[in-house]
Amino acid sequence: MASDQSNDALIHSADPEHPANLICELCRKFYTLGWVTGTGGGTSIKHHDHIFIAPSGVQKELMKPTDMFVLDYNTREYLRKPQVLKPSACTPLFLAAFDRGAGCCIHTHSQWAVLITLLVERDFGSDACFEIEMIEQIKGIPKGRGKQGNLGYFDRLRIPIIENTAHEEDLTDSLAAAMEKYPDTYAVLVRRHGIYVWGDNVHKAKTQCESLDYIFQLAVEMKKLGLPWTK
Amino acid sequence: MASDQSNDALIHSADPEHPANLICELCRKFYTLGWVTGTGGGTSIKHHDHIFIAPSGVQKELMKPTDMFVLDYNTREYLRKPQVLKPSACTPLFLAAFDRGAGCCIHTHSQWAVLITLLVERDFGSDACFEIEMIEQIKGIPKGRGKQGNLGYFDRLRIPIIENTAHEEDLTDSLAAAMEKYPDTYAVLVRRHGIYVWGDNVHKAKTQCESLDYIFQLAVEMKKLGLPWTK
Amino acid sequence: MASDQSNDALIHSADPEHPANLICELCRKFYTLGWVTGTGGGTSIKHHDHIFIAPSGVQKELMKPTDMFVLDYNTREYLRKPQVLKPSACTPLFLAAFDRGAGCCIHTHSQWAVLITLLVERDFGSDACFEIEMIEQIKGIPKGRGKQGNLGYFDRLRIPIIENTAHEEDLTDSLAAAMEKYPDTYAVLVRRHGIYVWGDNVHKAKTQCESLDYIFQLAVEMKKLGLPWTK
Amino acid sequence: MASDQSNDALIHSADPEHPANLICELCRKFYTLGWVTGTGGGTSIKHHDHIFIAPSGVQKELMKPTDMFVLDYNTREYLRKPQVLKPSACTPLFLAAFDRGAGCCIHTHSQWAVLITLLVERDFGSDACFEIEMIEQIKGIPKGRGKQGNLGYFDRLRIPIIENTAHEEDLTDSLAAAMEKYPDTYAVLVRRHGIYVWGDNVHKAKTQCESLDYIFQLAVEMKKLGLPWTK
Repeated sequence: MASDQSNDALIHSADPEHPANLICELCRKFYTLGWVTGTGGGTSIKHHDHIFIAPSGVQKELMKPTDMFVLDYNTREYLRKPQVLKPSACTPLFLAAFDRGAGCCIHTHSQWAVLITLLVERDFGSDACFEIEMIEQIKGIPKGRGKQGNLGYFDRLRIPIIENTAHEEDLTDSLAAAMEKYPDTYAVLVRRHGIYVWGDNVHKAKTQCESLDYIFQLAVEMKKLGLPWTK
Repeated sequence: MASDQSNDALIHSADPEHPANLICELCRKFYTLGWVTGTGGGTSIKHHDHIFIAPSGVQKELMKPTDMFVLDYNTREYLRKPQVLKPSACTPLFLAAFDRGAGCCIHTHSQWAVLITLLVERDFGSDACFEIEMIEQIKGIPKGRGKQGNLGYFDRLRIPIIENTAHEEDLTDSLAAAMEKYPDTYAVLVRRHGIYVWGDNVHKAKTQCESLDYIFQLAVEMKKLGLPWTK
Repeated sequence: MASDQSNDALIHSADPEHPANLICELCRKFYTLGWVTGTGGGTSIKHHDHIFIAPSGVQKELMKPTDMFVLDYNTREYLRKPQVLKPSACTPLFLAAFDRGAGCCIHTHSQWAVLITLLVERDFGSDACFEIEMIEQIKGIPKGRGKQGNLGYFDRLRIPIIENTAHEEDLTDSLAAAMEKYPDTYAVLVRRHGIYVWGDNVHKAKTQCESLDYIFQLAVEMKKLGLPWTK
Repeated sequence: MASDQSNDALIHSADPEHPANLICELCRKFYTLGWVTGTGGGTSIKHHDHIFIAPSGVQKELMKPTDMFVLDYNTREYLRKPQVLKPSACTPLFLAAFDRGAGCCIHTHSQWAVLITLLVERDFGSDACFEIEMIEQIKGIPKGRGKQGNLGYFDRLRIPIIENTAHEEDLTDSLAAAMEKYPDTYAVLVRRHGIYVWGDNVHKAKTQCESLDYIFQLAVEMKKLGLPWTK
C-alpha cells in the first residue's frame, strides 16, 4: 500500500492533460513569461477531490510530476507529499479559490502586476482597485461567478488590490475578504508582490491570467506615455 | 460520406504548407510574439475556394489542424465545423479581405498596435491615420493592390484607424469603408483593440504583419524619446 | 555538370560549420533577436573564394541551405543562383566588407540601432558618430584591422553613421567612404535603417554584432533615464 | 595517463547534474536571458575539490562539456585545460566566492544590473549600495552566510557596488573587500559592467541571480515611472 510519500499512482500518467503533467507544462511557460522567476509564484489544479500543487522552492522550468503535492480537498490531508520538498506557502490561498468554485489557481510575480499595484497606490490611493476600460482584451475576463459570458469592451475591469504581508499564508484572510467584497472578480492583486488568478478550469485560469498580464503591461506603457486608463 | 462536422480530409495533410498546418505553425509563432495572448487574435487562409479559419477561444500555441473551420468561399457555408468549438468572430472581417483579393488575413492584439491607436488619437485626433516616413522597414509594405512592388524609403506609410465596437463582427462595415477610402492599404488598425493585416498569400501577410509591428514598436519608442514620426 | 542554378554540391553538407548551414542557423537566431523581422537584414560568409549569401525576401527563420546564393569572390560571378529567389540587395555592401578582409558580414534592422541613429542626429548632429565609453561590453569589439586585441574599458567606442538611400545598393559608396574615414571600425550604422557589422570570421562577426546591439539597447535605456553616454 | 589537456574523464558524464553538463545548460539559459551576450559573463561550479569553469571567448549558447576548464581547488593547478581556449578572466573572482563557501558563482553582464549601478551613482553617490525594500522577490535572497533562511519582505536588500577596472582580474581585491564589508551579501555589482552572484550550490546561485535580476529590472522600471525604491 502506498504511503503518503510515495503515492505515485496519483501523479503518473501518459495523458498530457493529467493535472501533474499540466502543472509542469504551465510552469515551463510561466517561466518563459517571467512570471515565476527564481522559484517565485505557484500553480494548483483541482481535479475532482484532489488538489495538485507545485512545491515551494523548485525551479519552475524544471518541474517534474514527481515533485507534485496532492491534497484531499475534503479532508485537507496530503495524499502525496514528496519528502525532500516543502509544500507551497500559497496552499491556503489556492484553497480559498477552490472554495469559491475554481478549478485552477495561478500565482505569479509578474513585474507588470507589481508595477500596477504601485501606480494605483500613488495615483489613486491605497484603497483603490486597478480600473481600466475600453481595451479589447478586457473581453478575455468573465463577468463574474454564476454570470454568463465575459466582460464587454465598454465594461470597466476592476481588480482589487490587497496589502502584502510578511508571510504568504497571512494573505489568506485579506484575499478571502477581497473575494467577498468583489464577488465578480477572478483575480486579486497583491501590493509589491504579484497576483492570484483563478478560473473554472485550467484553460480559463491560464488564458485569464494571460489577458490580465497583457492589460497590466499595456497599462504600464500607457502610464509612461501619459495615456489615461479610464475616461 | 463526411458530415460537415467530421470532414477531416480537408484538414489532414503531411505537407507543412497545407493551410491547416500553416495556421497552427503561425499561431505558435504569433503567441511567442505576444500577438494572440489569452486566445486573442486570429488567422485565416484562403486556398482556392476554401477558407481555413482558426476557431475562437482556443489557446493559440496549442492549435491543432483538427480545430480548423473550413468555409466554402462561394456559398459561405461551412464545409467543416468542429462541434465543440465556436467559429471566429473575425470571420466576416477575414472575408472582407478575401473579397479584396487577399490570400491570408491576420488579426493581432499587438500592444504596439493598440498604443499607436491611442497616441494617434491624442496627438492627431480621432480621424487621423498613423503616418510615418523614412524608416527602412517601410519597404516591407506593398504599394497597393494592383500596383507593382513595395513602398520606398521616402514614401509615407499610412495605416487607417477605425473605432472599436462592442462586437467584433460589427467592425465589418467600418473595415470595408476604410478599405474603400484607403484602397492601397494592406492593414487597418482598430482603436484600443489591435490590427487586421492581409496579403496576397501567407508569406506576404505574415511578413507584412511583422514589418508593421516592427514599425509600431519603433514608433512607440520614438514617442518615449521625443522623436517625431514625420518631418 | 551542374548549371549555376543547381550547383548543389556547394551548399549540401552534413557539417554544421559549413557556411550554408551556419547562415541558416544564424538567421534563426537573428529572427529571435528581432534583427531580421519581416525578411529584413541579411548575412553573408566568405569561405576561401566562395561568398555565401542569404537571398532577399525569404523568411529568415525558415531559411534552408538550398536558398543560398554562392558567388565567386574573384570573378564576382554566381556559382549558384536559385532561380525562384532574388539575390540580396546587400551583396555589394557585403563585398565591401570582404574586400576589407572580413570573413563574415551581418546586416540587421535592429530597432536599437535605428533609435541610436535618430538620437545621435538630434543630440549631436547629422555628422556625428555614436560614441560611448566606460561600458564593460565595449571590450567585445576589436581595436581595429591589423591591430592586436580588443578595445579596453576606458577606450571610447565610435561607430560611424551614414545616411540612408532609396536603394540598398546605393549605400555602397558611403559605406566604403566610412570604412576609409574610420579604418578601425568593424561596423557602420545606417540612419533610420540598421547596421552593417563584419568580422574576421563568423564567430567574431556574430559576437561583435551582439555586443554592439547590447550597447545600443543599453544606450537607449540610458537616454530614457537621463544618463549620459560619455563623461 | 591523461595529460592536463585531455583529461576528459573529468568532464564526460551522462548525468545532466554533472557540473560540466550543468554549466552548458545554464549558459544556454543565460544567453536567452541576455546575461551573457557576445561571450560576456561566465559561470563556475565547485564540486568537491574540483572547480569547473566555462572558458573565455566562447559563444555561451554553444558551450560544450569539452570546452570546460577544471582547476584543483587546493593546489590551484589546472587538471584540464583545453589547448585552443583561454581560461576565464573571472577565475580569481570565482575563487574568492568559493573561498567564502560558495558552491557556484555566476557573472552576468545584465543590462538591468548595469543601469542600477549608474542610477545609484547618480542619485545616491559612488559610495552607495543599491537598496530596496518591500518587494516580495527580496524573499528569494538568503539572510547571509551562516544565517538561517532568507530575507523577509520588510527587510532591506543591500547589494554593494564596486568600481570597474581595466582588467577583470583586477576586480579581485575590491570584490574581496566588498565581501568583507558586507559579510551577508551573496552578490556584488560592478559599475558599468554587471554582477557577481554566488550561492551554496548551483540551484541557489541560479535562482538568487534570477531574483536579483528581477529586482533590478523592476527597480529600473520604477525609476522610469517615478516610483521610489525605499520609503
